[in-house]
Amino acid sequence: MGHGGGGALSGELTEHLFAAAYGNETLAALTDSAAVELGGARLAFSTDSYVVRPLFFPGGCIGDLAVNGTVNDLAMSGARAAYLSTAFILEEGVALDVVGRVAQAMGAAASAAGVTVATGDTKVVESGHGDGVYVNTSGIGLIPPGVDIRPQRATPGDVVVVSGPIGAHGVAVLSVREGLEFGSDVVSDTAPLGGLVASMLEVTPDLHVLRDPTRGGLATSLCEIAAASGTGVVVTESAVPVPESVAAACGFLGLDPLYVANEGRLVAFVPPQHADAVLAAMHAHPQGAGAAVIGTCVSEHPGMVVARTGLGGTRVVDLPLGEQLPRIC
Amino acid sequence: MGHGGGGALSGELTEHLFAAAYGNETLAALTDSAAVELGGARLAFSTDSYVVRPLFFPGGCIGDLAVNGTVNDLAMSGARAAYLSTAFILEEGVALDVVGRVAQAMGAAASAAGVTVATGDTKVVESGHGDGVYVNTSGIGLIPPGVDIRPQRATPGDVVVVSGPIGAHGVAVLSVREGLEFGSDVVSDTAPLGGLVASMLEVTPDLHVLRDPTRGGLATSLCEIAAASGTGVVVTESAVPVPESVAAACGFLGLDPLYVANEGRLVAFVPPQHADAVLAAMHAHPQGAGAAVIGTCVSEHPGMVVARTGLGGTRVVDLPLGEQLPRIC
Repeated sequence: MGHGGGGALSGELTEHLFAAAYGNETLAALTDSAAVELGGARLAFSTDSYVVRPLFFPGGCIGDLAVNGTVNDLAMSGARAAYLSTAFILEEGVALDVVGRVAQAMGAAASAAGVTVATGDTKVVESGHGDGVYVNTSGIGLIPPGVDIRPQRATPGDVVVVSGPIGAHGVAVLSVREGLEFGSDVVSDTAPLGGLVASMLEVTPDLHVLRDPTRGGLATSLCEIAAASGTGVVVTESAVPVPESVAAACGFLGLDPLYVANEGRLVAFVPPQHADAVLAAMHAHPQGAGAAVIGTCVSEHPGMVVARTGLGGTRVVDLPLGEQLPRIC
Repeated sequence: MGHGGGGALSGELTEHLFAAAYGNETLAALTDSAAVELGGARLAFSTDSYVVRPLFFPGGCIGDLAVNGTVNDLAMSGARAAYLSTAFILEEGVALDVVGRVAQAMGAAASAAGVTVATGDTKVVESGHGDGVYVNTSGIGLIPPGVDIRPQRATPGDVVVVSGPIGAHGVAVLSVREGLEFGSDVVSDTAPLGGLVASMLEVTPDLHVLRDPTRGGLATSLCEIAAASGTGVVVTESAVPVPESVAAACGFLGLDPLYVANEGRLVAFVPPQHADAVLAAMHAHPQGAGAAVIGTCVSEHPGMVVARTGLGGTRVVDLPLGEQLPRIC
């Protein structure tokens, strides 16, 4: 299960098995979406399969999650999603009503994100060989001229900004799984981030890094960016916005909110001279209303993420081996 | 199971459930790949999930099938595949060696087709919730200027050409499933068709329709083209190339080769003035060496496919409800 968790085991699989088998450099760039040239245009191209369990959870379902997830992966290259594909693997016997509700949610999410579902596929596997509905979405979008957003560009001095409170998606899914009840109403943060990113790019095309901290949470995203860029990252724990209900649920379950999945949040590495203006642009957008500066990029401890704890100490933030919560997306 | 078979039930699902939910026209065009505009370029965009069982079969495996399938869907719009995405849903406990062999096959197939795997994803589901490996591939490619290939363009007078002998893929997969043995060596026809289509387009950009007869076989492709264009199609049964070993296996199993899946064949509707030259170009290409004229497009019986049988009679070729052989791709 750990190999699907988005942590170190997933990274090993990508690097040693897939990138080796495919033998190319585009895949090895380790971005959320690939930047490719086609017909003179610079495109972002991304794919994700969704196996979240249960299919419906507070704040969303596998359908809007699948649309927003790929829209957001494209946005992390600075691209506005233009076209999506959707491919279903249905389990024999799943109610068409369930498939219909998922498709309706996808249509509504696509409409909200301003993206067109252009092509699709449906396969059916025997009862007992699936989980009702698995969905894959892939997407393409244009990368605006002058934009070059990738983890390798993190630079000492960059200001690290998160777009809103973290941890809600993972806790919301967990709250309805296995009958757990926390007595609180945590709803998933699933949302499209293309509009927020467009607002940020209006301030400056020179954003260094964008990443949506899904599987593995904020900590995993920061570790990957530190490793890819060879810079250090310092995070002030108390500056990281965590909703009280999420903190309570995490305390109860022994989870660290830094490692819990988000589906409508991004972390940005912004050159210091643009940080105030970018933060203001984020605050002016509904998806960035809760944006906060959580740290900086430093030349000390290259490749490593360090958190300043509430007690005034520091601790190393590690890349997790697998995922605390399997099948979160 | 029938809803995943590529026949009438799949069509209903696409038309009434997905196209309705997504509310757009691109999806409703019913082509193998969508033609979209982005950054001034005309792109083909396609997706397919693969759930073939078993994963390895004579002549190929789920890996090369997944690469060739999407390469071919793009080729059916006249596009040469440029970039692919690959997304895996792995079942917990599947041997990494198996995943590695699939990935190696994908790398080799991508290399043979001249396409770059640009982005990917891996999810893992619990043991018992998958079948080892499910793969999704999506792809993009450029549609050359002046090319407008879609089923609606079939016109009375068009010559109907198939690129080679049919039925091998379906029979090859079936031969190793459930321990069936036919005493013959039928291997899958899985192959990339981008090069063959490029050769055909060198003769004329004015090919009317291209389709790769996968799920549901040649009969389903012809029925879909007849319905989309509102023209009639007449096929001479004795002109359709069927290998002896495939015919024998189909006879044994009570299958009609016209409905058996192919993964390296195409059917083309060619304006009569270009038919000889296109056929010659096909014969000159390794993937079209066995090409044959099998029929014509007529103004009689609009929307219907009729076969001239060996006995001199005619029969209506119907769209199947589902698939004779589930999980063939």
